[in-house]
Amino acid sequence: MASIKERLHRGYAQTMELKGKPLADEKSQYQRIKIFDTIANGRVMTLDGVVQITTRDESAYAEMLTHLPMLEHGKVERVMIVGGGDLSIADEALKHKSVKEVVLVDIDGRVIELCKKHFADINAKAFRDRRMKVVVADAFEYLARPEAKNRFDLIVGDRPDPIGPGKALFGETFYDRIKRALKPGGFATFQTGVPFYQPEEITDALKELQAHFPKSGLYLTVVPTYIGGFMALSWAGKGARLGTPAGIKKAARAYKRLKLKTDYYNPAIHAAAFALPEWIARLVP
Amino acid sequence: MASIKERLHRGYAQTMELKGKPLADEKSQYQRIKIFDTIANGRVMTLDGVVQITTRDESAYAEMLTHLPMLEHGKVERVMIVGGGDLSIADEALKHKSVKEVVLVDIDGRVIELCKKHFADINAKAFRDRRMKVVVADAFEYLARPEAKNRFDLIVGDRPDPIGPGKALFGETFYDRIKRALKPGGFATFQTGVPFYQPEEITDALKELQAHFPKSGLYLTVVPTYIGGFMALSWAGKGARLGTPAGIKKAARAYKRLKLKTDYYNPAIHAAAFALPEWIARLVP
Repeated sequence: MASIKERLHRGYAQTMELKGKPLADEKSQYQRIKIFDTIANGRVMTLDGVVQITTRDESAYAEMLTHLPMLEHGKVERVMIVGGGDLSIADEALKHKSVKEVVLVDIDGRVIELCKKHFADINAKAFRDRRMKVVVADAFEYLARPEAKNRFDLIVGDRPDPIGPGKALFGETFYDRIKRALKPGGFATFQTGVPFYQPEEITDALKELQAHFPKSGLYLTVVPTYIGGFMALSWAGKGARLGTPAGIKKAARAYKRLKLKTDYYNPAIHAAAFALPEWIARLVP
Repeated sequence: MASIKERLHRGYAQTMELKGKPLADEKSQYQRIKIFDTIANGRVMTLDGVVQITTRDESAYAEMLTHLPMLEHGKVERVMIVGGGDLSIADEALKHKSVKEVVLVDIDGRVIELCKKHFADINAKAFRDRRMKVVVADAFEYLARPEAKNRFDLIVGDRPDPIGPGKALFGETFYDRIKRALKPGGFATFQTGVPFYQPEEITDALKELQAHFPKSGLYLTVVPTYIGGFMALSWAGKGARLGTPAGIKKAARAYKRLKLKTDYYNPAIHAAAFALPEWIARLVP
């Protein structure tokens, strides 16, 4: 039985057995892209051998990076997605009727094309949506453009790990540019690694956020194939804090009113996401 | 580099690279026991190739099966542990001064002996504790003994998956015996599988608990090496419900008063453990 083995963390690997032949396997200008069906994890895309999305658990990632800040914000109109070429995050953001545009900026056009072809169950609706703008460009450069200034209510950093083409999406200048592109009252949310295998990534990221934004913090989701239990998500903003009792209540009312259909997110999970196990709380600077 | 590969779920495997030679590798009367040090996961024991405990994440399991019900109960004096030969659960239960005895019943004496030798960091204190009673016996049989009747405030089912020697620890008669051994107001907590890879185990277990106990329910923990993100824990009792706002508040006060030292559990995590993601909520019968 053919299988793929992910060796993202030192001394540890996960293996998924394939169902049939890979659907895509090519080298783009930036990375090796593979898409395949698996026995246990649905359809999967890896970039340079690292799992980016599986149809079985993408909701735990995409919903928590979008609905949580959007429902607390209350009136998100313009969303930017850094990376996210599979459009799973865009698809969640577009469920909100207040949204006027979702600008997705991914550096690798081949990822977008292959995901359009092979992840239609997740993204066909988003690709057809008139509010959707897909930009093939370096998000780091895009954020410096005049039109990005002061434009977005939500910026989602669906960045890869700080290796390869995603390297510029960590570090000081990146956060400065995010801040510049956020409207007053806006939020940014970021993939921030798996604390169990990447503890220093969380500490470093939170330190940088604290240095660049008046408000920032950590919350958690659980994406089984982002191996290691909890995945850390971080948030930053110029206005309110996320995760206050008032914000959580406001989000719960909005969730009910909007009749959002979700597979992971709900108001109880929203509140629970800010509870940190002792060992993770100790990583917060 | 030597490594061990766990293939518990169809189409999926996890691999841990070893550090040095295995510390133990033998076949007992019941199962193959291996203990080894790993690069990424600390010291690990597998039984018949399935991870039972790692020093890096055992707290997420042992603390949630003990402190959560014990702090809500308020005065647990007698604890029984079904299985648990590594004594990690016993060690947590013994942190409570109200506890007068912890009876651990594991069928495999070799597991207990090897864990005593190789997991002393976790269990040396428990082995020395006068309140600790280690019984090498079939827990299913033990529960039917006259002395077990109406004796325990907490019974922890640290049972393996429903295969091999653990098979009798699922099913009707087992739950009847647990109920008989519980004092009024007592709680039982159970390992109930990983919903992402074993969804039917949760539904089946909860149906059986509902049929046998006046009160029962589900809560969650995250043990990275019990692969699949969330691990389901279930509880059952004759008296109060676990996880009510009043119970959570009571536990938070007790946690502070007792100055418990934990690596995973805290009052916020206690409350959060009862929040179920939508996809898990749908598995609840």
